[in-house]
Order: sequence, then structure tokens, then C-alpha cells
Amino acid sequence: MDQLQIFSPATVANVSCGYDAMAFALESLGDEMTFRKNDLGKTRIVKIEGADLPFESNKNVAAAVAKRMLQDAGANFGVDIEIVKKYKPGSGLGSSAASGAGAAFAINQLLNNRYTKLEQLKYAMFGEEVACGSQIADNVAAALYGGFVLIRSYEPLDIVSIPTPSQLFVTVIHPQIEIKTEDARNILPKEIPMKTAISQWANVGGLIAGLHSSDYDLIGRSLTDHVVEPYRKKFIPHFDALKRAALDHGALGAGISGSGPSVFALVKGAEMAEKIAAAFNEVYKDSAIDYRIYTSGIAKTGITLSNE
Amino acid sequence: MDQLQIFSPATVANVSCGYDAMAFALESLGDEMTFRKNDLGKTRIVKIEGADLPFESNKNVAAAVAKRMLQDAGANFGVDIEIVKKYKPGSGLGSSAASGAGAAFAINQLLNNRYTKLEQLKYAMFGEEVACGSQIADNVAAALYGGFVLIRSYEPLDIVSIPTPSQLFVTVIHPQIEIKTEDARNILPKEIPMKTAISQWANVGGLIAGLHSSDYDLIGRSLTDHVVEPYRKKFIPHFDALKRAALDHGALGAGISGSGPSVFALVKGAEMAEKIAAAFNEVYKDSAIDYRIYTSGIAKTGITLSNE
Repeated sequence: MDQLQIFSPATVANVSCGYDAMAFALESLGDEMTFRKNDLGKTRIVKIEGADLPFESNKNVAAAVAKRMLQDAGANFGVDIEIVKKYKPGSGLGSSAASGAGAAFAINQLLNNRYTKLEQLKYAMFGEEVACGSQIADNVAAALYGGFVLIRSYEPLDIVSIPTPSQLFVTVIHPQIEIKTEDARNILPKEIPMKTAISQWANVGGLIAGLHSSDYDLIGRSLTDHVVEPYRKKFIPHFDALKRAALDHGALGAGISGSGPSVFALVKGAEMAEKIAAAFNEVYKDSAIDYRIYTSGIAKTGITLSNE
Repeated sequence: MDQLQIFSPATVANVSCGYDAMAFALESLGDEMTFRKNDLGKTRIVKIEGADLPFESNKNVAAAVAKRMLQDAGANFGVDIEIVKKYKPGSGLGSSAASGAGAAFAINQLLNNRYTKLEQLKYAMFGEEVACGSQIADNVAAALYGGFVLIRSYEPLDIVSIPTPSQLFVTVIHPQIEIKTEDARNILPKEIPMKTAISQWANVGGLIAGLHSSDYDLIGRSLTDHVVEPYRKKFIPHFDALKRAALDHGALGAGISGSGPSVFALVKGAEMAEKIAAAFNEVYKDSAIDYRIYTSGIAKTGITLSNE
């Protein structure tokens, strides 16, 4: 294989109660990436569409991941990378993760499946370090593994795939404002009350049980976050109105995607996803803030090949 | 129905990572209780075997629960209760819960299924208040619902039954020392580090996923407790040695049962349960402390009728 084109999905991390431990991948939103072997032995970004991202191979996440994987493998070829971004970086939808995980997946293919999935994940996590300074696993794991993932442990790295109920859909609104990851981190307390922690892990248990048993009501009841949302929602204009609109119109639950500013709602059925999209639109339509709204199924298989 | 005899199981609460949110019921260890209608309109404890428990109907947990249920129902009969305790109170194995849940289950039968399971649970929780001053749900829910339960929420009360893998067994050692519930509560911090909380809810997620998918290794990896065990283990002589012995001999995991002093190990297979029992025995056999060791399956259905 000398060339491949892939779809690398957008991802929602945290999923309300599962702060820093859960994420899922979107089926209809993500980046298109093309990887072509070259004889120069160099990793080059040859095209970027849809976002203002660096071309330098030590700053561009996809290039940094690709370069390191090829080096570690002692590959005798380089790679030309094209990136077509379908949603904006800084959305809280795992934009850098889509690039990093996409590169890890694609380079592994060009190297004839040299790496295990867990090894690909570690390269993708290196990409997250390039993007934001730390090796976060949630978004890249969701992109690589697909569906819902649980980061059970970092040391050792232990990723658990959680089944996705067939009628689960998601609506996302991306208000196009900037939230600095640093601010989103710094606003969180270093300690939390035991009582709050207990209710959070009870909800994580409920969410995992609901996903396993396709119990949509249980999923909805468990999508509660007393730990992070009360702090971070301040960064997101109209957050309370968005959440109320989602719940009033029949969403299972709603919360902040990653560190925001995007807000997601999980729903039962594609029709409900459209209904919530309309409800989100009502909240934002008279706002001065640009926004995009997406509806999607859950990407059960994560990154997919699209070039055949 | 004028009379019934039941088996009300011992229960293990917390299950390492699931502090105040999870519990399971034992198949082979529990109390035998007999309930017989009387025409006096009074609730009486007529026999207690195996433990030194109060006979007064406002102090005895079973009697207190029975009395309140009969009163609330406006029943025209009283009940005579016999309790045969097969394990000692103060073990951390839900002794009061077995009595309270047993009474709630039995009186509901004598009242021709007047109450829902959730209502029975609330009466059993009242029994916990009589026993220890607060309406804890974990042990009573495990006894009433059977198998593994998740207390997803207290307000509103939301109990989630989690499936039990068929080869899951448990070994328990009860060192017969007294730990005051108050001490066990007071030693815990009121706040915990965010990082610790995250790893705890990741493990709860892993444990629930492991139980749902019969993934014994995942269950084992998830049986980790960074929140409570480091504090409470100080109350339990040889705790570290017991835990090491369990893990060295092939247990999936081990931890403190409830607030102790009992220590449980979850294992795959009945043979392994015996092996861990022997390993526990090795640790304690030269100790000056009296102890009992039990092996058991998981009680998939909770309290059972035994009088036919």
C-alpha cells in the first residue's frame, strides 16, 4: 500500500460524569486525511484545508506523529500528508486527536500493521502532547477504538471499549469562541468533596451499565456532572439555556464536550437528534456568536479507510 | 400465607472502588428468619440464635422494620419473628441489612405483595437507621435485589442491578475484632484529590463493564481503591498480608468488606475460592485473633423463600 485516505472522527470527551475517563466518537463529523509514501524520506504536510494549522513537521500533530512512527520503524520512505478539516480546531471536539489518531492509524497501515492498537494509541497520545502539552488519552482512544471508550488506567494504559446502543445519536453545537485549555484546567478545584466524588462514580457506573444494557433512561439519568460542569459552564455563553432546551425537548442528557466550548446532547433516535439541533439553534440564533450545529450517530469503528 | 421462612444473604458493600455505591450478596452465607402471623397485633422477636441482639421491637432491626410496615399497611395481624444468625454482627458483612431486608421482604409477602421492591428497600433502609443511625442503601439493596447492585443515586433512590458472571465466587475472612462504624467513617477525609477521584470512577466504570461482559481480568484490574482502603486498612490486622496472599494465589482482587473488619476476595471458580480460603487461613492461623473464613457464590436472586 503506497497511499490511503481515511476519515478520522471528531470525539466527545468526558461525557458529563466521566471526566478524564470517558469519550466517544462521532460518525458523521471528522477530518479527511490522505497519506502518500514519498521517496524523500521526509514527512511533509502538503495540504491543509479548513483550518489554519502549522505545516512544520514538529508542530503539526499529524506530521509529528507520522515522523516519529516512521523513524521508530526505521522506514525507508517518507510521507506526504493532506488534511481536510471538516470542523474547527479549538472546538472541544478532539480536533488535534483526530489528526494524531488519524496519522497513527494511517502510518501503521503504510507499515503493514507493524504496531498494535495500544502502540498506535501511544503515538497518538504523543500527538496530544505536541498539541496541548500533555499525553491525554480520551479523545485519541475514542477516535482509534470507536464507539465509547473508558480510560480505566494510565499506568498501565488500559482502554476498555464499551458497547454503543444502536439508537444512540448525538447533537453538538460549537459556539465559535475560544476557551484556553489552560483556563479550563485551572478553574477546576484540586480537591473535591467525598460526597460529590461518590455521586460522580455512581453515575459513571450507571452510564457504563446503561450503555451495556441499551437502557436509554439509565444513560440519561447518569449524564450528570457535579464535578466539572459547574465550573466550566461559565466559559460557555447560554450553556444553561442549551442544556434546558435539550432536556425539555427530549434529549437523554447534555453536557460540555471535552473542555468546551462545544456542548453535546445524547439522544435516542436520529429524529430526536434533529429536534435537539433545532432547539439548540433557537437558543443561539439571535446571539452575536458564530456557531455550527451537527447531528451524528456514534462511530462504532472509529477511524475508517475511505480510499477504495 | 400465614408463615414463611427465608434465607437473607450476607452482603459485601463498597467492593473496593465502589465506596458507598456498590455491593453484592453472598449465596452460602446469611441468616435464616421465620415470620409467623399472630392475632395479638404485636410484632415480637420470639427467638434469636447465634448472636446477642436486642429483643425490643424498637431496637431490633427486623422487628422495627416489620412493625412499621404492618402499621403503614393497617394490617390486622402481628408477627412473631425468629432469627437464626449464621455469622456475627459487626463483621462488615451487612448483618443488620440481612435482618432489615429480610423483614421487609417477608412482611411484604405476608401482606400479599403490597409493596414494590423499591418500597421494601426504603423500609429496609429505615432498618439501617435503627441499626447504625443512617439510611444506607448498599447492603440492603444487595440483599433484596441479589447479585451486584449499583446505588446510582439516593435522591431519587435509583438502584441498578448489574449482571453477575457465572464463574464469580468470593472468599471472605472475618477477623473477630470490633471496628466502630463511627471510627471507620471519621478516619476518612472529607475531600479527596481530583486525580484520585478520577482513577476511582475509572475503576468503577471498569468493574461495571467487567461484570457486564464477564471479563474476569477487567474485574480484577478494576478492584482498586485509592480512596478508602489506605485509611481503613489500619483497623484490620494483617490486611496487607491477606491482600497479598489473595493476589499471589490467583484472586482477581481483594479489599475491605463494607467498613470491615471482614476482608473479601473475588475469584474465578469455586476451586480458587477454596485456595484463597487456605491462603487467608495461613495468614491468620498463628494470630491471637479469632476468625472465620467463608467461601460462596454470588446470590443472584438475593433473599429466597425456604419454607416449601
